[in-house]
Amino acid sequence: MKVTILGCYAATPRTLTNPTSQVLEIKNHLFLIDCGEGTQVQLRKQKVRFSKINHIFISHLHGDHFFGLPGLVATFRLLGRVNPLHIYGPKGIKEAVTLLLKLGDSWTNYPLHFHELESKEPLAIFEDHKVTVTTIPLDHRVYTNGFLFQEKVGPRKLEVQAVQAHGIDSCYYQNIKDGKDAPNSSGKLIPNAQLSSDPKAVKSYAFCSDTAYFPEIIPQIKGVTALYHESTFLETEADLATKTKHSTAQQAAKIATAASVGTLILGHYSTRYDGLEPFKEEAEVHFKPVLLADDGRAFEF
Amino acid sequence: MKVTILGCYAATPRTLTNPTSQVLEIKNHLFLIDCGEGTQVQLRKQKVRFSKINHIFISHLHGDHFFGLPGLVATFRLLGRVNPLHIYGPKGIKEAVTLLLKLGDSWTNYPLHFHELESKEPLAIFEDHKVTVTTIPLDHRVYTNGFLFQEKVGPRKLEVQAVQAHGIDSCYYQNIKDGKDAPNSSGKLIPNAQLSSDPKAVKSYAFCSDTAYFPEIIPQIKGVTALYHESTFLETEADLATKTKHSTAQQAAKIATAASVGTLILGHYSTRYDGLEPFKEEAEVHFKPVLLADDGRAFEF
Repeated sequence: MKVTILGCYAATPRTLTNPTSQVLEIKNHLFLIDCGEGTQVQLRKQKVRFSKINHIFISHLHGDHFFGLPGLVATFRLLGRVNPLHIYGPKGIKEAVTLLLKLGDSWTNYPLHFHELESKEPLAIFEDHKVTVTTIPLDHRVYTNGFLFQEKVGPRKLEVQAVQAHGIDSCYYQNIKDGKDAPNSSGKLIPNAQLSSDPKAVKSYAFCSDTAYFPEIIPQIKGVTALYHESTFLETEADLATKTKHSTAQQAAKIATAASVGTLILGHYSTRYDGLEPFKEEAEVHFKPVLLADDGRAFEF
Repeated sequence: MKVTILGCYAATPRTLTNPTSQVLEIKNHLFLIDCGEGTQVQLRKQKVRFSKINHIFISHLHGDHFFGLPGLVATFRLLGRVNPLHIYGPKGIKEAVTLLLKLGDSWTNYPLHFHELESKEPLAIFEDHKVTVTTIPLDHRVYTNGFLFQEKVGPRKLEVQAVQAHGIDSCYYQNIKDGKDAPNSSGKLIPNAQLSSDPKAVKSYAFCSDTAYFPEIIPQIKGVTALYHESTFLETEADLATKTKHSTAQQAAKIATAASVGTLILGHYSTRYDGLEPFKEEAEVHFKPVLLADDGRAFEF
């Protein structure tokens, strides 16, 4: 599982910083999360193959999270895209993108599917045999969802030596991987635990931006491998965080601790600060390990 | 008069090239012409003061000419803009920008005025005591206007020595500057031509992008100081130019010659070409001087 940060700064694109967008590689999928202005240029800089993006998840309709989307949809067309594109985002996203395409008489010639969201409860919005994606309702000034990406638990691992020692017929191997007991050559049922071991631990990624401090998300993100949580401000600006429904680095860390996540990634920094280290220092008082997102940085888990 | 090219490449923003946008400084105005994705970052790179932009002219509603506009309008708000902003562009532009602001619950707190265009005849859309702006209807796949920016003719220059030699009273000076004859000390009317000289030549700039080869514009742009004319293609791709309603460098030069313009600036290049020199070489067979627009380049006249 790999997260590549295309942009992780709040508010406006600037000369050296980009608004929110990131790419999650998980089980052969390449999911694009949010799409601020300039995302397509960031995708080029990070050498992400445009054709591998089939699903785009938009947290909310503030410009710094979605003003790059119409241009990306149009560029896919110019690149001769054929595969369907699925866009998940708040109600209204379809009207916005299609209006802009209509005005430019630039309809896509690939199938474009919108999955509009308006539920305030967690909702399973994508599933295949290896991954599920669920919304994480957040608390921001407009309707906002985070997204929880989870690998599915794979089959149990066959303990080949044990299976052979018990003289178990190979026709039972799939049953054993599925967790069932199996008979040995004398017909005696051998418990599954003696024939297989636990499957590889599954990985999961929770993207939570933008949001006020919102402990309601904790049960849903319990134990995720990595949590990206916004930290627009430091505690010195806690009043601004409250007022604008954003979080401080300390608040992000408290969420990470309460949810016992594996790693906390901070991002969505206000550009008022000179450097990023103070965010890490503030968070590490409450939780470790903390990683600092920055444009162009990638994290593997 | 100064033109700063923020972006001059066709189709999509790329790592090193930007879609169309430019800034025209003329008589203390700072006009923004077109606003492709990434324009606000280009404005920052060129150190253009955002607060000096009060008028934005959008040629047409293809993404590479206007997908940077919603973000710029939103950024103006975040920067605490107070002054009114005027946006001139094809009908539909108001619906597009306001829908995106509405979805993000991000109404501007400065006055935002849209001037929607649908006339296929040249139309005076801006005038003050020093400058006029007129649309130049073009021939593209969607409704498109170029823009003609013209300084107004100033007062005639008083020839101080001649005026004094004729003993003309100072109360007639303004009349002389306005082109009128004036009486000398004996009451004899002295012709204006003996008392004043022609005012400083006025400057003008015609922006013509995107368009097929369209000689109908020639009378309107006759004698302009500088013509920016799109040259998406070279003659080797003339068939593509015809098909997509764009121009070749040769066609741009033929328009420049027929209109006896002062200088031709080429731009809106397809990214299929390796360098820009072939555009200049092709144009210079028919017209000189030719300047090559490029992102970040500025031209003074």
